Amino acid sequence: MRSIDRGQATSRIDLLATEEPMEIRLRHGRRTQSVAVTMRTPGADFELAAGFLFAENLIHSRDDIGRIEYCLDCEDVLQQYNIVTVALRGPANPNLAIPDRNFGMTSSCGLCGKERLDQIERQGVKTLLPGPVIDHTVVTSLPDKLRDAQGLFTATGGLHAAGLFTAAGDLLVLREDVGCHNAVDKAIGWAFLEGMLPLSDHMLMVSGRSSFEIAQKCLAAGIPVLCAVSAPSSLAVDLAQRFGMTLVGFLRGERFNVYAGSDRIRTDR
Amino acid sequence: MRSIDRGQATSRIDLLATEEPMEIRLRHGRRTQSVAVTMRTPGADFELAAGFLFAENLIHSRDDIGRIEYCLDCEDVLQQYNIVTVALRGPANPNLAIPDRNFGMTSSCGLCGKERLDQIERQGVKTLLPGPVIDHTVVTSLPDKLRDAQGLFTATGGLHAAGLFTAAGDLLVLREDVGCHNAVDKAIGWAFLEGMLPLSDHMLMVSGRSSFEIAQKCLAAGIPVLCAVSAPSSLAVDLAQRFGMTLVGFLRGERFNVYAGSDRIRTDR
Repeated sequence: MRSIDRGQATSRIDLLATEEPMEIRLRHGRRTQSVAVTMRTPGADFELAAGFLFAENLIHSRDDIGRIEYCLDCEDVLQQYNIVTVALRGPANPNLAIPDRNFGMTSSCGLCGKERLDQIERQGVKTLLPGPVIDHTVVTSLPDKLRDAQGLFTATGGLHAAGLFTAAGDLLVLREDVGCHNAVDKAIGWAFLEGMLPLSDHMLMVSGRSSFEIAQKCLAAGIPVLCAVSAPSSLAVDLAQRFGMTLVGFLRGERFNVYAGSDRIRTDR
Repeated sequence: MRSIDRGQATSRIDLLATEEPMEIRLRHGRRTQSVAVTMRTPGADFELAAGFLFAENLIHSRDDIGRIEYCLDCEDVLQQYNIVTVALRGPANPNLAIPDRNFGMTSSCGLCGKERLDQIERQGVKTLLPGPVIDHTVVTSLPDKLRDAQGLFTATGGLHAAGLFTAAGDLLVLREDVGCHNAVDKAIGWAFLEGMLPLSDHMLMVSGRSSFEIAQKCLAAGIPVLCAVSAPSSLAVDLAQRFGMTLVGFLRGERFNVYAGSDRIRTDR
């Protein structure tokens, strides 16, 4: 890598964030089905697979899972660690009658934001529990804690981070990935595999923006407070308002914005 | 929206980046096929559809397109502007025999990065033409030009931007979106519909990171120089090295890094 500063070039060695495809497969009885391929940063792959399948409403508790494994009998050695199979146990799950396609995002899901929110409601997702009230000083303490824990970020500058915090502001787990949605799946997937869901007394913080997809993942996990360094999208705010989520954005230094659910944030006045 | 500063809350009105789903359909003769649903910021939807289909290797020149239209006869009024149909003309395209799934990302594409690059080569993609040599002062001028043109960003802070520049550093088009890959599809889709491809004498700059996906879109369009405000991923660098692309990252102020193709960058020494 060449580093250019005011026209002067020097050679340097740089650490890069690794990006590799990973396929998530679901096995149920004798049937194995490919459900998604995501570009991700290797590491916490089982948590990523569990978190993704949970967010997609395909598994509901860790007891649904019999085993999670890499495809160690793959012919191509390079691919062995890029295929993760989640083997289910228990009776047949009707949700698994999914078409072989990008099922998370099909036209049947409704092609406007309002329709998406209606659909989530029809799936039985309820308004979030009241949960904790968080002092503003706890909220403003989160970015530094996230950054301090972000070893990889410091080295590569190329990774999104998602941190799961207690209501008191203690970091439980930090996960990083080239894809922000993957970092969130990894963090929630960790809690899922620990048997901690729903996370009704927790906060999630992301290093980037809050999209609809990220807000939806938090909603599925029961997380009442979602914080982001940058802005939320319109549909993330709509979701937060509809389901009683506290949505914090532009969380930097002593300042932040609350786009929904401000009753969970304690201010001085 | 409530704005909190050192514990003091004030109410403010805030502009948000709109996020809505959009389905891209391809019509060929009597057959209409749904090829993707993406969460996007409405606007430049036809460019997004064209750019996406081009990047996916489903259309190759604007002459392939007979018509692009919204689904104005949809029953649901809210969905009318969230479905874009690209109607092809000409003889049957064998590439259209695609399975009804997330075809851009299936396991048949190869599940390791090297395999992905091999596959691009097998599709007939060649090493990029030598193209222009760019003075470092032109490179460092790009971020300000991108930001100055980013009207929406200034207002919402929630949008990714992609700008297409001439080799002299003149901005031809800027597109914004909640999804960075959409912003790139919109910018390249604009050039595609203008009949400007391949863009062998152009540069693309993105406001975020360079992923494999973004580098691949630039490669398909023949763009020899890709610049980003933040870091590239490992696989983006691998792709750039393999296909002769110049990849610039951490482009801020007077400084930037060159991860591949540094022969296209003129420095003072």
